[in-house]
Amino acid sequence: MEKQILVPSPTDELVNRALEVKSASVSLSQCSNDQRQSALILMTEALSLRSSEILKANSDDVHRAEQEGLNQALLSRLKLTEEKLRISIEGIRQVASLSDPIGIRQLHRELNTNLYLQRVTVPLGVIGVIFESRPDAVMQIASLAIRSGNGAILKGGSEASLTNIEIVKAMKEGLSKSDIQPESICLLKTRQESLGLLGLDGIVDLIIPRGSNELVRFIQDNTRIPVLGHADGICHLYIDSAVNLNQALDIAIDSKCQYPAACNAIETLLLHKDIAASFLKLAIPAFEKLGVTLLGDELSQSFGIITKAEESDWSTEYLDLKLSVKVVSSVDEAMLHIRRYGSRHTDAIATTNKEIARRFLRTVDSSGVYHNCSTRFADGFRYGFGAEVGISTQTLPPRGPVGLDGLVTYRYFLEGDGHIAEDFSNGKKTFSHIDL
Amino acid sequence: MEKQILVPSPTDELVNRALEVKSASVSLSQCSNDQRQSALILMTEALSLRSSEILKANSDDVHRAEQEGLNQALLSRLKLTEEKLRISIEGIRQVASLSDPIGIRQLHRELNTNLYLQRVTVPLGVIGVIFESRPDAVMQIASLAIRSGNGAILKGGSEASLTNIEIVKAMKEGLSKSDIQPESICLLKTRQESLGLLGLDGIVDLIIPRGSNELVRFIQDNTRIPVLGHADGICHLYIDSAVNLNQALDIAIDSKCQYPAACNAIETLLLHKDIAASFLKLAIPAFEKLGVTLLGDELSQSFGIITKAEESDWSTEYLDLKLSVKVVSSVDEAMLHIRRYGSRHTDAIATTNKEIARRFLRTVDSSGVYHNCSTRFADGFRYGFGAEVGISTQTLPPRGPVGLDGLVTYRYFLEGDGHIAEDFSNGKKTFSHIDL
Repeated sequence: MEKQILVPSPTDELVNRALEVKSASVSLSQCSNDQRQSALILMTEALSLRSSEILKANSDDVHRAEQEGLNQALLSRLKLTEEKLRISIEGIRQVASLSDPIGIRQLHRELNTNLYLQRVTVPLGVIGVIFESRPDAVMQIASLAIRSGNGAILKGGSEASLTNIEIVKAMKEGLSKSDIQPESICLLKTRQESLGLLGLDGIVDLIIPRGSNELVRFIQDNTRIPVLGHADGICHLYIDSAVNLNQALDIAIDSKCQYPAACNAIETLLLHKDIAASFLKLAIPAFEKLGVTLLGDELSQSFGIITKAEESDWSTEYLDLKLSVKVVSSVDEAMLHIRRYGSRHTDAIATTNKEIARRFLRTVDSSGVYHNCSTRFADGFRYGFGAEVGISTQTLPPRGPVGLDGLVTYRYFLEGDGHIAEDFSNGKKTFSHIDL
Repeated sequence: MEKQILVPSPTDELVNRALEVKSASVSLSQCSNDQRQSALILMTEALSLRSSEILKANSDDVHRAEQEGLNQALLSRLKLTEEKLRISIEGIRQVASLSDPIGIRQLHRELNTNLYLQRVTVPLGVIGVIFESRPDAVMQIASLAIRSGNGAILKGGSEASLTNIEIVKAMKEGLSKSDIQPESICLLKTRQESLGLLGLDGIVDLIIPRGSNELVRFIQDNTRIPVLGHADGICHLYIDSAVNLNQALDIAIDSKCQYPAACNAIETLLLHKDIAASFLKLAIPAFEKLGVTLLGDELSQSFGIITKAEESDWSTEYLDLKLSVKVVSSVDEAMLHIRRYGSRHTDAIATTNKEIARRFLRTVDSSGVYHNCSTRFADGFRYGFGAEVGISTQTLPPRGPVGLDGLVTYRYFLEGDGHIAEDFSNGKKTFSHIDL
């Protein structure tokens, strides 16, 4: 194990800009809920006013990207229509209406007469966000940061650079009319700067990468700053022997096909040997109709799957209409496979056997473990969080889909009247520990 | 910024032992509260039965350490008396009586008819603990791990190796009579193994270092596994101009002297210029009487402090009867000093001015911010957590003193009846999001 971080140190100029954001974030952290909400509304108004400049800049970005031969999928993510911009601005309004994640008292305890402990949620400080292509992400993440009282250092994809400049200019205009300093957000422009961002530990409190697995992994491996994200989404669906086959097939199709490029789509189907033949009899034509390529182990090939799954398939996130299939002899073998190859994102079981379902849910240690439903529900909006900051596959909290509360931490406040620890050591006073 | 992890990769033998703990931890994670509690009681019984062997091994360790010239402070931490052992065993009983941190439902929500989301606390998995000297820590941390359903890989100081072997042998004997596999805990013996532990990402979920700042920093810099701990504890007390001087002096003395080697002891006193002279008139003789060396900036030297504080003093954790003193012109200057030199552990203000106190509490972003009380209260037991797993100075939760809930995470369970995401995309179904 050798971890070598070879990214360049941040330049003095970058450090100074980051300190400017940090300083603005300190005053932002003290703004009231109303102040933060009206700042977001002022941002939406400024964005609406500047929409023609933003769309013009975007068409310039798209034009250049076309000339440089950017592929169609990325081009369509880059392109901002009037309608997409309107929806993004409306998204900021929705973020404004989310309930305030800061100032929530999580603990209130009397330790002794006139000695009170509180644990209260506070903003993290400064968030660094690195994302690819999509300019709408700039608006979304900046508004989530402001909503939760955090400063934000943003680095978008170079393809979208003109668009991002106009968007951030408009958002800062909006902020300048509010009680929040425009310096609370800052846009980085060069790759050099975004590498430097990774070295801003002590100033930046959290990095959120939005982009490819490679981007996320590179960032995780090259910074000491905590990273909220997931490099892999190798999700599984295990279909047990006691099962409603048609329901299981619906779940399998939805989990794979509803949006194959999503991290919560399944990559591997595990089939109990007793139902493998009958399930695949239904599934092979159904998946074929939907353009899904199945790759099977030896047994599932004997039930009609043509392409062979290689060892590497079990740990491949296809992000595409491809699905590997393996026949297992028991739920235990399925769970062992998931522990070995899974990324602890979201894994599901389809079964009518409640005892088996219970064992699966208690044993599989992924952030989401599902019974008789699609893995595609692993999403902050679908969970009812109102927003999704990211999905984390780490073990420690926050894990799974993370809402606005992923951008806050807490602080302990202790207020006394001259209380000293020695009085409690020598027995003059004792702790009451009464929750209030 | 270059991060080079140059510790050796774990040997196959170590990986296999760690996988054994991991496998035992999976079955441990499914044990009931009663099963975990009685396992702890069986551990206490086995430790009591084996106490003469443990004390014999300890006296051998102490004898060797004396011959090798270990200093007196470390020797006294190493030495296990009958009384210290009894207290440690009693400590395990107390851990058994703590309320169960796992299985707590943090969220229960209907997403749609028959589609239910739950967020429930679960054990982390396997915890790696590296500590120095004190053999009582082995008993404490192993019992905290079992209580919270986690496996534990333990590496104690080499001075205590014979003691630790006997202690772990006894604890495993206790476990072997319980429903929990003795393989849930494992003791590493060599330095090579403890370095290898740092490379067990994917098997070990959290590392808890218990020891010197150097140990903690080395571990933080040489593992990808999350680390619960703090390298520095540079805590401050700011004494405002509006203040009860005698109360402030009591707080200053307690914060420095009650246990100077603790991370929550203050290293720097910040004095408002208007009270600096009168405060130091009281404080200089009081601290002198207690054997505390004061190091002052130019202004506080003009008020009678003899030794000059160098620039490096502001970022030095003395862990000793030494205290640096600086005169500031306002609460803002005090807060700037804390932001620049502090370690975001615990910082306090002494003032009778409620508005100034409020600003201090809202602005200083340390995990503990105190008003009119000693920084020495920053402790899991004093907060009423019943146990302290460690104190974290990171920004993200958990921060500050961390109780048993620092050893758990959560999992989302989603249970449906064939629910698929496509039905919600095409409008056939809508999310109800009703909290239950």
